[in-house]
Amino acid sequence: MIPAELKQLAQELAAASAEVIRGYYRSGLAIDDKSDASPVTQADREAEIVMRKLINERRPQDGIIGEEFGRENAEAEWVWVLDPVDGTKAFITGRPLFVTLIGLLHHGVPVLGVINQPVTGDCWLGVVGEGTTLNGKPAQVSQIADLARARIGSTGPQYFQPQGLAAFNELAAQCRFAVWGGDGYQFGLLASGGMDIAVESGIKLHDFAALAPVVIGAGGLMTDWQGKALDINSGGDVVAAATPALHTAALDCLNRG
Amino acid sequence: MIPAELKQLAQELAAASAEVIRGYYRSGLAIDDKSDASPVTQADREAEIVMRKLINERRPQDGIIGEEFGRENAEAEWVWVLDPVDGTKAFITGRPLFVTLIGLLHHGVPVLGVINQPVTGDCWLGVVGEGTTLNGKPAQVSQIADLARARIGSTGPQYFQPQGLAAFNELAAQCRFAVWGGDGYQFGLLASGGMDIAVESGIKLHDFAALAPVVIGAGGLMTDWQGKALDINSGGDVVAAATPALHTAALDCLNRG
Repeated sequence: MIPAELKQLAQELAAASAEVIRGYYRSGLAIDDKSDASPVTQADREAEIVMRKLINERRPQDGIIGEEFGRENAEAEWVWVLDPVDGTKAFITGRPLFVTLIGLLHHGVPVLGVINQPVTGDCWLGVVGEGTTLNGKPAQVSQIADLARARIGSTGPQYFQPQGLAAFNELAAQCRFAVWGGDGYQFGLLASGGMDIAVESGIKLHDFAALAPVVIGAGGLMTDWQGKALDINSGGDVVAAATPALHTAALDCLNRG
Repeated sequence: MIPAELKQLAQELAAASAEVIRGYYRSGLAIDDKSDASPVTQADREAEIVMRKLINERRPQDGIIGEEFGRENAEAEWVWVLDPVDGTKAFITGRPLFVTLIGLLHHGVPVLGVINQPVTGDCWLGVVGEGTTLNGKPAQVSQIADLARARIGSTGPQYFQPQGLAAFNELAAQCRFAVWGGDGYQFGLLASGGMDIAVESGIKLHDFAALAPVVIGAGGLMTDWQGKALDINSGGDVVAAATPALHTAALDCLNRG
């Protein structure tokens, strides 16, 4: 069981960061670099500062691993893993698909995750062994078990290594259709039954730490490409699936290459 | 000059169709086929019926070309071109990036376009020679002229022919970055300065008829891959760019293959 105060804090972190990030959304869309002054960099940094402050106040004993400001007490029993703006390119181009990712590790294992979209207000909260909600209502993965009916997605072909891309393309060719783009948002959609397989290559702990509990809490599976459970030491090649049959089929294909 | 009543009607069509479509958004996400009963098919059909009814009432002399119900009086001076749900896969998976496209042809040439996102409420209205607005405020393309600074996008690699995909990939490799997914929505973002180049292959009149006026009204360029202006007889390989320099560079690359 995860203490209720941790679930409460996770939601407050989402709300506090969203307020900061909304202030920068589509401001200066034509600012064309990721300089210190760019809206996405400012949103990223300010949102992480706000979240770190809240965690330090409420749970000074917990650790923090943040995309922007690194590690602090990362050997603690409970460690928060923060990615204020996942989907930097979505943010830069003005698409409301970037998300704030808040993961919680217990002894290095992701047990709670939040995927929050500050503009649309979609907020998934997943707890391993307890369940996942979208804006407070239960979220459940689809029951699709047949690859030919599966809706698969990934952020972009350019993030794969050549061999991995070939394997992904082979997998996608057997699915009902593929959608591209989406970053962390697509793992929320998978938790809500809108997608059936999501695959990424080379993502980081601050990405998957939040995604896995949302997917697993909704009844899905999320592992690395070898089928191993994700933890603080995992590499960044991940696959999420709605059902064990799809997960097995995806792993088979991804490892055949 | 486009009669004010036509601009008014375009916006009413967007509002009326959005109300219908919102009712189906994320309903039955796990319904996994495009059968007659699927939410996306119902949304598509009902939204087009609502729009046709409004046009027939207000402008019985105008023609209509709709994705769902075909052509009606398509030789008229003014012809409305309707795609109620552009981005079917985005709709099916629950992404708020699908759009309703409403184009208006004058003697076969697109002169007015609406790109409307029913969930987020983003509504671009573009009129060639007059301007483009996003929710009533002026929209303007970026001033980026250098490929290395350009943000490029397309819906998915699977929609290109092999030669076209190779050319697109070569072009994208010279850009700052590529974003995938987005369908008609990305042309609105280009009009607002959030993207600089958008390329699609094999799209239809009911797609580009609305997109071109939004891009051109905002100061951008949109043509086929040969650089020809789009009209009722154009093929579906299109390229939009924020500036003449980017447009030329994109055409060069797309035609080199």
